[in-house]
Amino acid sequence: MTASRRLGVGIVGSGFNAKFHLQAFQAVRDADVLGVWSPNRAHARETAGLARRLDVGQCRAFDSIADLVGDPAIDALWLCGPNYARIENVEEICDAVTRGTGELIGVACEKPLARNVAEAKRVAALTRKAGLRHGYLENQVFAPQVEWGRQLLWARGASLTGRPFLARAAEEHSGPHMPWFWRGDLQGGGVLNDMMCHSALVVRHLLTEPGQPYATVRPVRITGRIASLKWSRPAYAKKLAAAMGKDVDYAKHPAEDFAAVTIEFETADGHRAIGEATTSWSFVGAGLRLSAELLGPEYSLSWNTLDAGLKLFFSRAVTGKAGEDLVEKQNAETGLMPVVANEAAAYGYEAEDRHFVRVFLGKEEPRLTFEDGVEVVKVLMAAYQSAEQGKTLAFPPRGLDQFKPAVARGTWQP
Amino acid sequence: MTASRRLGVGIVGSGFNAKFHLQAFQAVRDADVLGVWSPNRAHARETAGLARRLDVGQCRAFDSIADLVGDPAIDALWLCGPNYARIENVEEICDAVTRGTGELIGVACEKPLARNVAEAKRVAALTRKAGLRHGYLENQVFAPQVEWGRQLLWARGASLTGRPFLARAAEEHSGPHMPWFWRGDLQGGGVLNDMMCHSALVVRHLLTEPGQPYATVRPVRITGRIASLKWSRPAYAKKLAAAMGKDVDYAKHPAEDFAAVTIEFETADGHRAIGEATTSWSFVGAGLRLSAELLGPEYSLSWNTLDAGLKLFFSRAVTGKAGEDLVEKQNAETGLMPVVANEAAAYGYEAEDRHFVRVFLGKEEPRLTFEDGVEVVKVLMAAYQSAEQGKTLAFPPRGLDQFKPAVARGTWQP
Amino acid sequence: MTASRRLGVGIVGSGFNAKFHLQAFQAVRDADVLGVWSPNRAHARETAGLARRLDVGQCRAFDSIADLVGDPAIDALWLCGPNYARIENVEEICDAVTRGTGELIGVACEKPLARNVAEAKRVAALTRKAGLRHGYLENQVFAPQVEWGRQLLWARGASLTGRPFLARAAEEHSGPHMPWFWRGDLQGGGVLNDMMCHSALVVRHLLTEPGQPYATVRPVRITGRIASLKWSRPAYAKKLAAAMGKDVDYAKHPAEDFAAVTIEFETADGHRAIGEATTSWSFVGAGLRLSAELLGPEYSLSWNTLDAGLKLFFSRAVTGKAGEDLVEKQNAETGLMPVVANEAAAYGYEAEDRHFVRVFLGKEEPRLTFEDGVEVVKVLMAAYQSAEQGKTLAFPPRGLDQFKPAVARGTWQP
Amino acid sequence: MTASRRLGVGIVGSGFNAKFHLQAFQAVRDADVLGVWSPNRAHARETAGLARRLDVGQCRAFDSIADLVGDPAIDALWLCGPNYARIENVEEICDAVTRGTGELIGVACEKPLARNVAEAKRVAALTRKAGLRHGYLENQVFAPQVEWGRQLLWARGASLTGRPFLARAAEEHSGPHMPWFWRGDLQGGGVLNDMMCHSALVVRHLLTEPGQPYATVRPVRITGRIASLKWSRPAYAKKLAAAMGKDVDYAKHPAEDFAAVTIEFETADGHRAIGEATTSWSFVGAGLRLSAELLGPEYSLSWNTLDAGLKLFFSRAVTGKAGEDLVEKQNAETGLMPVVANEAAAYGYEAEDRHFVRVFLGKEEPRLTFEDGVEVVKVLMAAYQSAEQGKTLAFPPRGLDQFKPAVARGTWQP
Repeated sequence: MTASRRLGVGIVGSGFNAKFHLQAFQAVRDADVLGVWSPNRAHARETAGLARRLDVGQCRAFDSIADLVGDPAIDALWLCGPNYARIENVEEICDAVTRGTGELIGVACEKPLARNVAEAKRVAALTRKAGLRHGYLENQVFAPQVEWGRQLLWARGASLTGRPFLARAAEEHSGPHMPWFWRGDLQGGGVLNDMMCHSALVVRHLLTEPGQPYATVRPVRITGRIASLKWSRPAYAKKLAAAMGKDVDYAKHPAEDFAAVTIEFETADGHRAIGEATTSWSFVGAGLRLSAELLGPEYSLSWNTLDAGLKLFFSRAVTGKAGEDLVEKQNAETGLMPVVANEAAAYGYEAEDRHFVRVFLGKEEPRLTFEDGVEVVKVLMAAYQSAEQGKTLAFPPRGLDQFKPAVARGTWQP
Repeated sequence: MTASRRLGVGIVGSGFNAKFHLQAFQAVRDADVLGVWSPNRAHARETAGLARRLDVGQCRAFDSIADLVGDPAIDALWLCGPNYARIENVEEICDAVTRGTGELIGVACEKPLARNVAEAKRVAALTRKAGLRHGYLENQVFAPQVEWGRQLLWARGASLTGRPFLARAAEEHSGPHMPWFWRGDLQGGGVLNDMMCHSALVVRHLLTEPGQPYATVRPVRITGRIASLKWSRPAYAKKLAAAMGKDVDYAKHPAEDFAAVTIEFETADGHRAIGEATTSWSFVGAGLRLSAELLGPEYSLSWNTLDAGLKLFFSRAVTGKAGEDLVEKQNAETGLMPVVANEAAAYGYEAEDRHFVRVFLGKEEPRLTFEDGVEVVKVLMAAYQSAEQGKTLAFPPRGLDQFKPAVARGTWQP
Repeated sequence: MTASRRLGVGIVGSGFNAKFHLQAFQAVRDADVLGVWSPNRAHARETAGLARRLDVGQCRAFDSIADLVGDPAIDALWLCGPNYARIENVEEICDAVTRGTGELIGVACEKPLARNVAEAKRVAALTRKAGLRHGYLENQVFAPQVEWGRQLLWARGASLTGRPFLARAAEEHSGPHMPWFWRGDLQGGGVLNDMMCHSALVVRHLLTEPGQPYATVRPVRITGRIASLKWSRPAYAKKLAAAMGKDVDYAKHPAEDFAAVTIEFETADGHRAIGEATTSWSFVGAGLRLSAELLGPEYSLSWNTLDAGLKLFFSRAVTGKAGEDLVEKQNAETGLMPVVANEAAAYGYEAEDRHFVRVFLGKEEPRLTFEDGVEVVKVLMAAYQSAEQGKTLAFPPRGLDQFKPAVARGTWQP
Repeated sequence: MTASRRLGVGIVGSGFNAKFHLQAFQAVRDADVLGVWSPNRAHARETAGLARRLDVGQCRAFDSIADLVGDPAIDALWLCGPNYARIENVEEICDAVTRGTGELIGVACEKPLARNVAEAKRVAALTRKAGLRHGYLENQVFAPQVEWGRQLLWARGASLTGRPFLARAAEEHSGPHMPWFWRGDLQGGGVLNDMMCHSALVVRHLLTEPGQPYATVRPVRITGRIASLKWSRPAYAKKLAAAMGKDVDYAKHPAEDFAAVTIEFETADGHRAIGEATTSWSFVGAGLRLSAELLGPEYSLSWNTLDAGLKLFFSRAVTGKAGEDLVEKQNAETGLMPVVANEAAAYGYEAEDRHFVRVFLGKEEPRLTFEDGVEVVKVLMAAYQSAEQGKTLAFPPRGLDQFKPAVARGTWQP
């Protein structure tokens, strides 16, 4: 039996996303999840218990973020709280570090980095000032099918016949589980802010040659469109209020449940390329659908998580309970149902956590930092601006740093 | 930084299969690969180097199996050598342990456990006598899609409408890479012996209720069929000799490149169930195809590794080199090509290695032991007997323990 | 406006199958459906009305088969009655023709030609004696995907790298709609007799070079297996009796609901080839699944009617009625559901009817005659013999002409 | 043998599209193709010969459109000539009819009806004035998968849970075969003008309740984007000139090879709906890809012609010639290749021709007239206007009737 240097990880947050990370850490060699903090103490305890059951570390619930920072066994924090708490969470971490409550190597922060450009810049500035290493948690870039497909397509196709010129990515499901996602004021927007961060980066990632920085594929023009297709219909606004509580009032304060963005890029080698990204909370299919395409002169790639190699079929005689056991955001229990057998792997969490553990252990350079997170927020805000104005905008558009979407301000009318 | 109890692993063998395990160990938390032995010293060094590059342990090449056993940091061996060396490898391990050269917790052995029933029983007996824990490495049973699909189908379908009655499994590709696979005398048979061990167990696994032992689904009748469809055609026998060396002479000593087995089971709850298993070295598709189906009165499951969510397309203008970068046993470089993004995970190696590491660390009970491996060999030999006699046999048939297939004896004529 | 020579068609039967032909005639240029006879006069009228609504001819109900023969506008009959009425129907046709009641060019007869070899030979002999042309209605051989796939694979693959050596075909669904199918005495067997006629011919068809006769691919050994997997379970036997009437008593007189046949062929060019055919009434998936594979040294073909380019998804909130509007033998109304948009075309009825109309108009030679139908019945009966004896039989086995399956005799015990 | 009233059809044009119609007429009951005119007399003869070989009529080549009109056996013309000849062709037809050279029941015209709004209006006005019935040939609306999927989705999904709100359609391939398509001046634009006519109508069609007129789903805002992604790259501009002749000079006069349009609709029942349509000449996949989606609150539909139930695989050892035998605009000959077994049926030509034959025989009301064709051209021109201005436009925008795209005027710079 031997010993090796391992990273002690603390998790801020106890929701859906935190659980994905716990599952993922089962496939990470050099890290232990040792602490969880959540404003809801019961949730924190439950999440810590799950971590122990999954045997990813001798995890316990902490009373505060400062306590997490103060535990000498904890080397890095995974920031998985809600968007509206981001600034507060980061301030508490950086305060604790600056005050010497404890030491941290780094912080990994879930997407989006923040609700708007001003907030995102503040997150990055605080972290830099506290001297912390930082990683931006965009799981889809680490999804094995995205990563391996991109490698192969560039190696076999682009090298021989020229770089790709069109990338598409979409994330679509039937709507989030927790009330705060639906509130523009807390979340920062609707589905564009919630999920376009994924797809907008995925298209750029696919268009960028492996080994090259994203700066070689620079956004120059952005066209955004948003709409409320389903959830502001009176019957669905009512359902939403019933499920999420009265504070989610889509009759008065709707948010977009559909968004599409077209990004024109200029590449360092003098080409134009186009990225088309779509997100939806008004999609109904087997469940969460992540998809992408990458096209070049003599090749193409397509990715769709619902084209799974495993499918179940249940006849109308099978009358089981509704659930999400087959796939995230599952919408039916009979008929043909694709199954994503290991969602934490398929959606990129395993590879992502493995990467950032190695980054904080000094074994790898970060592929995504808070600077990348800031850039993504800029693209999202430009898309909102474009949608509000009904025209294509040169990127970055004027006023981007101060911009807050009408949806976030509660003034949007579909 | 914390320390934790870890398993030191030594690997016997340096081929294709050993490399799959090295990749898999990247996703295993509590083990380090510390040693490799191979009769070919250069291969051992190369494999040890790969292990270090993958950062799965401070691995080095050893001069003998006994040396592996003798290293106090090594707690368990993964037996990944060729079939014809199995007895010799196991003898050397057990000798070393018995002589006190070193201590081992256990041995995990690749499939098939041995070339015939007599050999398989000897492997099991030696290991038991040496007091070692043992694990039978059948990766497909651990494939996430198999495991998760089986769980869901039993939980949602069988519990409400009755147990499944038909399982199908197939493993098909265009033929193995190394000469010894093609020689009946060394390998023990043709494709039936090489790959039916997977599919014959997968059908039984699927038909067995999760949490119940395989003994609840007992084989009672077996029908086997073998044929040489492709590789004994003169042109292909010639190609084979050119690629594999003169000792592989399919004109004189062919082995079957196609096999199908039907197993009738009796279940502990009084039902009949059927397993259909097929294997082929004469399949040409995108590459290795693992597939299965499970059918019951109101439900079904289907699995196919080539129905991948990631697909690449290269036009006829893309003229890259032949390779296996898209999928194992890849057969083309243009057209639509499914990509299995992480084969070590998809085929079950990650979950398998994670399980047996936990078994040897005392955290889990083994799901598959050498007894299971012996039982699989019995089924394979019964299938050969049935094929040679052209009739269905009650299981176990007479003379099973002494039986050697005509293909292994070099007397088979297709 | 011009006139052209057209074929007047009369249909014997008014069931499921007759309706498929009516739909198909919408895509046939040179024929009009002018008459229908059924023992149930109301059904005949209804079917004639459907033909008029579909505008495939000024169709009316007839009082007898002889009346159909006697109508001078009717040139050919399509025999779509149940298996147990086949001999009687053919006798009535041939009597009427021989007696000079009317004139016919030919008769097209649905599959299987009859319930056993003796009956099939009698159908063929009567028809020959009456001087009628004859066509054997095996739709799957005319399915566009089968026909076009076979053409391409032979032209591109086999011509360059050698003939195919393995064909698979399966027809699987959840059971027929009408009681007589379930009764061995009336139908002649279970699912093997009902549907293996399709798949057993499809494998031979695929293995035969386009333009060559089936005699170039001759069956030499046959292995059959039958089982009752679902419908003899007490709960399902009860459901069956409730749905089909007391005369369908699977507790006492079960029929097989699963069958598999392996046919070894010898080819005129000196090769062996294998056909694997499977049929099931115990399959539960989206609906009827027709599938096939054809494999050769450097190529393969796969066909699956449920891999449709059109898919619908309905969430658990969509609570519509059970139906078969998406696909034949549909098993669910929510979840992902493949849709076969034009089943009469997809399953081969359009091309089949177009062909036999042209045959009877003297424009084409028949691709399938009653002799082919007799040969298919021989294969099915040999498969039953093999299954009953538990061994592979040389084809044709002894006693084939007199053989009646135990299932047909009511003596089979699963 | 009986006679029936049949439609005599004359075809103007002898290209790719005309051949699709000839194949389709094999499945049309009540029409004969009797004449073909083409400016190239040899092509006309060849096309007439093909019609006779396909046995769709005693077809012969005519010397002029007026001669076609003058033949008393010809009742209707199918207008399949190039876009630049549309006005001239229609004038010649209407002149001949007006002068009494002959009689026609009607004219069916291929899409797009014309190159811009002014021309389209002239086509419609001339036809009306000549007293002819008219049909707009948009095949995709008749594709069985589109038609049947739409019926089912509205019947099962929309009726219970509310109308659909999002439709997507795309037509993508690697570029047209004939030089004039590539010339903005002759064709009227690039890929937007060539193929968006399909997709722009398909999205509206899907969003319209079956049985209701398109007017119930009215376009109110349009956003268009065009780009030249592949063919203006110097290497490809050179290839194009080499293949198409010097008059196709993409270095100087490029046309867009990629276009995307978003159409916002207002529905008669007070909802908003969105249509997203995409077309591409810079797509590389197995071949022509037609796809669509339709989404509503609890359901969705997806259609993709390349998700075919028939697939062939050829290994790298199969070295056949390039072709389009597997699928239109095929891009490879090895690897996995989907096959569209009957393209004339799958793409809607059979059902379309059957419909318009019945329309001209007085048996059905036309589903698409020249008025629909004019409306489609308006949408296309508005999309070009939007793309040129970089903003969303209210529909119809000002100046639409006089608008000619920069691409058509030869002044577009990507």
